[in-house]
Amino acid sequence: MTRLGGMYGPDATFLGVPRADLSDPAGWAGTDVMIIGAPFDGGTSHRPGARFGPQAIRFTDYLPHDGSRPHLALRVDPLAELRVADAGDVEMPSGDTELSLRRLEQAVHRACHGGAIPVILGGDHTIALPDATGVARHDRFLQVGLRGYWPGPETLDWMAGQRMRSYEMTEVVARGLDECLSEAFAIATDECDGVFLSVDVDVVDPGMAPGTGTPEPGGLTSRQLLDAVRRIAMELPVAGIDVVEVAPPYDLAEVTAFLANRVVLEALSGIAWRRRRAASPAAEPGHAPESPLLSGRGPEVS
Amino acid sequence: MTRLGGMYGPDATFLGVPRADLSDPAGWAGTDVMIIGAPFDGGTSHRPGARFGPQAIRFTDYLPHDGSRPHLALRVDPLAELRVADAGDVEMPSGDTELSLRRLEQAVHRACHGGAIPVILGGDHTIALPDATGVARHDRFLQVGLRGYWPGPETLDWMAGQRMRSYEMTEVVARGLDECLSEAFAIATDECDGVFLSVDVDVVDPGMAPGTGTPEPGGLTSRQLLDAVRRIAMELPVAGIDVVEVAPPYDLAEVTAFLANRVVLEALSGIAWRRRRAASPAAEPGHAPESPLLSGRGPEVS
Amino acid sequence: MTRLGGMYGPDATFLGVPRADLSDPAGWAGTDVMIIGAPFDGGTSHRPGARFGPQAIRFTDYLPHDGSRPHLALRVDPLAELRVADAGDVEMPSGDTELSLRRLEQAVHRACHGGAIPVILGGDHTIALPDATGVARHDRFLQVGLRGYWPGPETLDWMAGQRMRSYEMTEVVARGLDECLSEAFAIATDECDGVFLSVDVDVVDPGMAPGTGTPEPGGLTSRQLLDAVRRIAMELPVAGIDVVEVAPPYDLAEVTAFLANRVVLEALSGIAWRRRRAASPAAEPGHAPESPLLSGRGPEVS
Amino acid sequence: MTRLGGMYGPDATFLGVPRADLSDPAGWAGTDVMIIGAPFDGGTSHRPGARFGPQAIRFTDYLPHDGSRPHLALRVDPLAELRVADAGDVEMPSGDTELSLRRLEQAVHRACHGGAIPVILGGDHTIALPDATGVARHDRFLQVGLRGYWPGPETLDWMAGQRMRSYEMTEVVARGLDECLSEAFAIATDECDGVFLSVDVDVVDPGMAPGTGTPEPGGLTSRQLLDAVRRIAMELPVAGIDVVEVAPPYDLAEVTAFLANRVVLEALSGIAWRRRRAASPAAEPGHAPESPLLSGRGPEVS
Amino acid sequence: MTRLGGMYGPDATFLGVPRADLSDPAGWAGTDVMIIGAPFDGGTSHRPGARFGPQAIRFTDYLPHDGSRPHLALRVDPLAELRVADAGDVEMPSGDTELSLRRLEQAVHRACHGGAIPVILGGDHTIALPDATGVARHDRFLQVGLRGYWPGPETLDWMAGQRMRSYEMTEVVARGLDECLSEAFAIATDECDGVFLSVDVDVVDPGMAPGTGTPEPGGLTSRQLLDAVRRIAMELPVAGIDVVEVAPPYDLAEVTAFLANRVVLEALSGIAWRRRRAASPAAEPGHAPESPLLSGRGPEVS
Amino acid sequence: MTRLGGMYGPDATFLGVPRADLSDPAGWAGTDVMIIGAPFDGGTSHRPGARFGPQAIRFTDYLPHDGSRPHLALRVDPLAELRVADAGDVEMPSGDTELSLRRLEQAVHRACHGGAIPVILGGDHTIALPDATGVARHDRFLQVGLRGYWPGPETLDWMAGQRMRSYEMTEVVARGLDECLSEAFAIATDECDGVFLSVDVDVVDPGMAPGTGTPEPGGLTSRQLLDAVRRIAMELPVAGIDVVEVAPPYDLAEVTAFLANRVVLEALSGIAWRRRRAASPAAEPGHAPESPLLSGRGPEVS
Repeated sequence: MTRLGGMYGPDATFLGVPRADLSDPAGWAGTDVMIIGAPFDGGTSHRPGARFGPQAIRFTDYLPHDGSRPHLALRVDPLAELRVADAGDVEMPSGDTELSLRRLEQAVHRACHGGAIPVILGGDHTIALPDATGVARHDRFLQVGLRGYWPGPETLDWMAGQRMRSYEMTEVVARGLDECLSEAFAIATDECDGVFLSVDVDVVDPGMAPGTGTPEPGGLTSRQLLDAVRRIAMELPVAGIDVVEVAPPYDLAEVTAFLANRVVLEALSGIAWRRRRAASPAAEPGHAPESPLLSGRGPEVS
Repeated sequence: MTRLGGMYGPDATFLGVPRADLSDPAGWAGTDVMIIGAPFDGGTSHRPGARFGPQAIRFTDYLPHDGSRPHLALRVDPLAELRVADAGDVEMPSGDTELSLRRLEQAVHRACHGGAIPVILGGDHTIALPDATGVARHDRFLQVGLRGYWPGPETLDWMAGQRMRSYEMTEVVARGLDECLSEAFAIATDECDGVFLSVDVDVVDPGMAPGTGTPEPGGLTSRQLLDAVRRIAMELPVAGIDVVEVAPPYDLAEVTAFLANRVVLEALSGIAWRRRRAASPAAEPGHAPESPLLSGRGPEVS
Repeated sequence: MTRLGGMYGPDATFLGVPRADLSDPAGWAGTDVMIIGAPFDGGTSHRPGARFGPQAIRFTDYLPHDGSRPHLALRVDPLAELRVADAGDVEMPSGDTELSLRRLEQAVHRACHGGAIPVILGGDHTIALPDATGVARHDRFLQVGLRGYWPGPETLDWMAGQRMRSYEMTEVVARGLDECLSEAFAIATDECDGVFLSVDVDVVDPGMAPGTGTPEPGGLTSRQLLDAVRRIAMELPVAGIDVVEVAPPYDLAEVTAFLANRVVLEALSGIAWRRRRAASPAAEPGHAPESPLLSGRGPEVS
Repeated sequence: MTRLGGMYGPDATFLGVPRADLSDPAGWAGTDVMIIGAPFDGGTSHRPGARFGPQAIRFTDYLPHDGSRPHLALRVDPLAELRVADAGDVEMPSGDTELSLRRLEQAVHRACHGGAIPVILGGDHTIALPDATGVARHDRFLQVGLRGYWPGPETLDWMAGQRMRSYEMTEVVARGLDECLSEAFAIATDECDGVFLSVDVDVVDPGMAPGTGTPEPGGLTSRQLLDAVRRIAMELPVAGIDVVEVAPPYDLAEVTAFLANRVVLEALSGIAWRRRRAASPAAEPGHAPESPLLSGRGPEVS
Repeated sequence: MTRLGGMYGPDATFLGVPRADLSDPAGWAGTDVMIIGAPFDGGTSHRPGARFGPQAIRFTDYLPHDGSRPHLALRVDPLAELRVADAGDVEMPSGDTELSLRRLEQAVHRACHGGAIPVILGGDHTIALPDATGVARHDRFLQVGLRGYWPGPETLDWMAGQRMRSYEMTEVVARGLDECLSEAFAIATDECDGVFLSVDVDVVDPGMAPGTGTPEPGGLTSRQLLDAVRRIAMELPVAGIDVVEVAPPYDLAEVTAFLANRVVLEALSGIAWRRRRAASPAAEPGHAPESPLLSGRGPEVS
Repeated sequence: MTRLGGMYGPDATFLGVPRADLSDPAGWAGTDVMIIGAPFDGGTSHRPGARFGPQAIRFTDYLPHDGSRPHLALRVDPLAELRVADAGDVEMPSGDTELSLRRLEQAVHRACHGGAIPVILGGDHTIALPDATGVARHDRFLQVGLRGYWPGPETLDWMAGQRMRSYEMTEVVARGLDECLSEAFAIATDECDGVFLSVDVDVVDPGMAPGTGTPEPGGLTSRQLLDAVRRIAMELPVAGIDVVEVAPPYDLAEVTAFLANRVVLEALSGIAWRRRRAASPAAEPGHAPESPLLSGRGPEVS
């Protein structure tokens, strides 16, 4: 069902982590995080190109592909502390939506069934549904950063009826992102044992993240997105992640691909941080991210 | 004097609204808002290209050109609630400044005379004067977001003598954009029955809006501009609008064109919101923009 | 040792200031600020191109190259009030790091020895060491805006042992840039008679400043960088400046080159402002940057 | 089945020709040429973006959209001499290949049934089959300009068995394009009453036509393609045309879109020229394209 | 009337040749060739940007700006053998066509009056008329490389009446560029004592020279243009040259600017070659351009 | 000395061929062709970026990375018929030219010593010397496609003294590339048992291959380069190959990377074709490249 390697371009893994074959669960037993490529853009209503997203997110970095990424603020190395593997791309022909999404859902399900947190690299936003369905836990639906001129009242009524909670940018600006997230976290974990984090990079302003399919001005800054992703991964029980709508043909100097790569790393770093703390709940974490970078490691400067 | 259709490129209207012929006022009687293209860049001191601005602002969207744009936060549909028409481009040869600006002023005047709020799509910033003059109400001059290395003391003295009020970025950062706007609103409406909103997209940082003629680093974010435009349209009696200095040759993935398109939509949405409230002053507006998106429309989630 | 003119491209100076020949100190006696080009990118670990940085920073502007730049907020004209000269580029073959950096250090030393504040236009970040060494005062090392996935714990321990003080972005976000700077200023001037300001443009988010060698998402905004540079130059005794990692091949519409040009102008403006105040310490400066732009210059509007 | 207007972006026709509604044949009776947009890229094996091809081909020109295009060499005006109409885009969701291609075939069939030569603006190369099938005459399959590393021997054997005739670039270079075309014309018209001209823009070297899905170096020049298209339209009974694989996201300064627009104009000019000659077979055509441009129109210069 | 230095950007000369002040003819007495910048794009019917052409043509090179350019095939060094000076840009505001063109014509006239061959760096194609008029010799009008869908029959009749001779691309392809040039040379020198060479870079295919205002596919190759320019300068008495329609905003990697720079160098090299031969008519030129590069300079290899 | 994998970016091989470790010759015994990456750009006199050339050449293709590339004209599959391996990149810091070139020469020497033809993917043109030296056979120096304004007479005299044979573009145009190549082949094989083919992609016109360091207008077409490479590999005993000066930062839509990838494939295809013919000299090769593509494989069409 799945294939090893990239559907488009060279056969290499996310920043050099080991390869896994989803059809051979024994081969990757004990894996904490499974990278899965979803190179599909048949569902975008406007600009295609997200089929090249998985490779862009996997490869874009100025650091060597050496399996180590020490997080400067969190003091964890997610690629060293977590067992991360890459299953390559699911074969998803963009001209056959139904087949493609079914294959993806099965791949995600296999990863979860094997005990790994799936991290799906999209692909356009239509993959979010099979991603979440493949995880198959009781997720609640939350949205942050919505804005623009769609949808109309009927759809909004339906969404309200589904007990969704959506934070439009006006509310985010008025209350602050941090406060919105805190409230959202309370909702998200109510009656839920896991959350699925779906990051559509178009939540960031297209002036900062141009490589996307449906650019809507007035979004978050990259800094805000990375902080939000980090907080979610540190504070919530993340059961799955996807990063969607990275469209390299519209990108410049790979800035959007860099951002998406960092979204993955921030999420993995937060997960690693949370696991470390869970492993020794009595102990204080060695380093608060917002404290001075070098404190406690040598003679203080002031 | 005016021409129907685009001076450069295909003949289509702003997001598909109906066409109007300015020389035939009876044909568009009752129109609330008149889109006017001003494809002129003979006045720019540096990068030309704003002649292609009107078409870029008219056409750039990922949604269908179907005459409907329900605003997610304001809960109004400006293209459905206002009668918006598009008069096409004024014929403005960039090599003949005087002729071009005179034609534009006449076109703006005709629109106002016919009872419509003119929304002029520039074009470089030299069109702002005929735009405002064509509106011909008693406007006061306000500036927000200035910065940089020009002009010198003599010009500043002259500006002060004109009783202008300008908010340089240092003041905007120190006091906050919201507070500056509140103060500016008090000034703007003092003794005035209408304000002309001139949006130079270079008020936004060129890192976020690169497609412009004279990029000056250190500007607003796109979010700040959209919020300011919306507030102005919701709180002030807007008598005319222009959006200038969109220079597509320097744009990337149309991010600046998208931003300018949204500036128009935010302004129209604010006008529609203000009119709806004015129509039923006793009633509370149905939805406060900064309140939760789905509140009051179904069972609350928390 | 040095050469007159640009190593790559036309022979012209920073915004039209006079030329100086470093090997002839008498020819530029009395110069306050010496521009020095360091067109070297042999030290970058990833994207080259910073060799074209000096010319991009010198030439990028939409205003005429006329030796005048009145600062709108500070009310100083740094190119008129300071004696600024341009020594052209140091001949730095990118394939010979040792030779190149030695030449640069000598050039910087000559400028300082002649009484000028050197402003070095990079070039990649490896030039920062010879820049600071050439200045040869007792500098303390401060870093603002760090982030990302490098370096590891050993290097951090060593940095802490060197009594460095680094402000990672998480701390900057949590405390605010202004508060971090205030604290940093106290540290920087403790026991020091001069500070060296090294601006790596990659401190700004690559979404806003894409033309750089090692883009790390989640950085400052352009506005924040300019404000920080201005404050540093206004409040600290700046002994030297460099601006590094401008890589034009990855830039768009010259937005990163514009930003770097403005970093230089903000720094020079701050120096001019500080000197003017020092010249007449009893008098209040004529204009507080954050006060209304036109106050005190004519009849107030409100 | 079909829709009026563009599936993506503004609603305007090919260079301003009249609109036609395929479902209302009476409305366009007598139309010679029917433009049909096929905005589909679900079939491309690599780079998507051809969904934006129809609009790019329709709109890209530096001349006004005024329904007149006098051909400098052929001395015909195809938009004035032929009755050309534009049926807008067929609604072709890229994620549903089967539905999309079926709709396209029906649209092409309707145009032919109504007596018009269909000119289909793609879209990726998978639309060529429904295009040709919709025309439903006895076409022979010819290929010019093939090159590269695909397909393997089995497919080639099958192609030979189909009595195809393919001109690989090596043969084109060795014999000359003109000679190959002459031979191909003899084959094409053998037993056939009409030929379908399918122009894949990737036949041109990607260095000259970068905006395409599967760029293979070593192709024709733009001049060669235009000359070939013109000859085909002048010498063969063209029953239908498509232009495929224009992928605007990869284009530069619209050069590929310009080329595709000119492919359409050259074809229509050739058809007009052929019709004019057929209408008065006894008379010499007024102007041989390769003769001096101004001969016979005034006193000769030499 | 004229100004020294660049109207846009840094003040430097064509590849480092000396500066001249047109208003001081004594200062440049004896100059053979006078470079004049014409940064005007108010006359373009479509894409502006040619105002930046003069600087792009002056500065674009990968070789040092050192006043030496030994031509590999012709064995002349035009910058060493001819006295070339650069008068900077004429001040030409793009919004005032009449004033701009009048100033240019005067500048060209001054250069000619002082005995120099003017080489005007455009600017859009409207500058060709004042360029030729300023030269004020009896020139005949020839055109090579025309193509496309403009103008109509009336204009063609008028052109024929003017005894123009135009080589449309179809004729160029059919007869070969070399034969067309040979014929054109005979016409051009009939009754004329000098020819004005006007090179519109859009004669080259836009796929190879994208940075231009009105791109028409199907043009010459760069090689063909350079060969034609070289032949013209070697074989005809060139009295003036302009290079127009270089529009840097649409260029890629400066390929069009490079081409235009080389057009100037080929023309100057041809002029130098012709002068050298005229100086010693009895002697054989030392090197035939089409002979082996290294023949006659050492032991032959074969 | 060498490293496995890419110095910049992901670890994958040329189109998916097997990996080899140069320090373990036994591991790749029997390899016919050894790909070696030389990611060095410290030697370029102008635009850097060729350090990213090896990865661009390895990865750029629209076909799957599956180890098969059937050549349409030659009817060989170079990746299937030759044993091709990829040794990854030599570790070449661009700031240390001497060290880098020494390492490269050793790597090339090892490949040759092990019996493989080295195919070096550059990297800038300074790598050509260690490439050829590492091959260490008696090569003669030939150059095709030179043009431009460098070097001067002294260097040309020296070159002539070295018995070099250089074909400047003027000669190539006058005599035709094919005739020049035929003559060059006679020279090249005189007294030589192997030739080193060094392909500088800047031999192609920068309008068609913009992604290079020192673009000189007036070059070959891509078609000409591919034909020349193919002929050389088919007719001469190629002992080594390099492809240099691919600079991805200046490329568009990867057209230059595609071209360089095809240069490698054409060369390997020619080698495979030559070996197949050498293996059965009596037999006629099955297919002449310039004959009709499908002849001899089915019923002929005409």
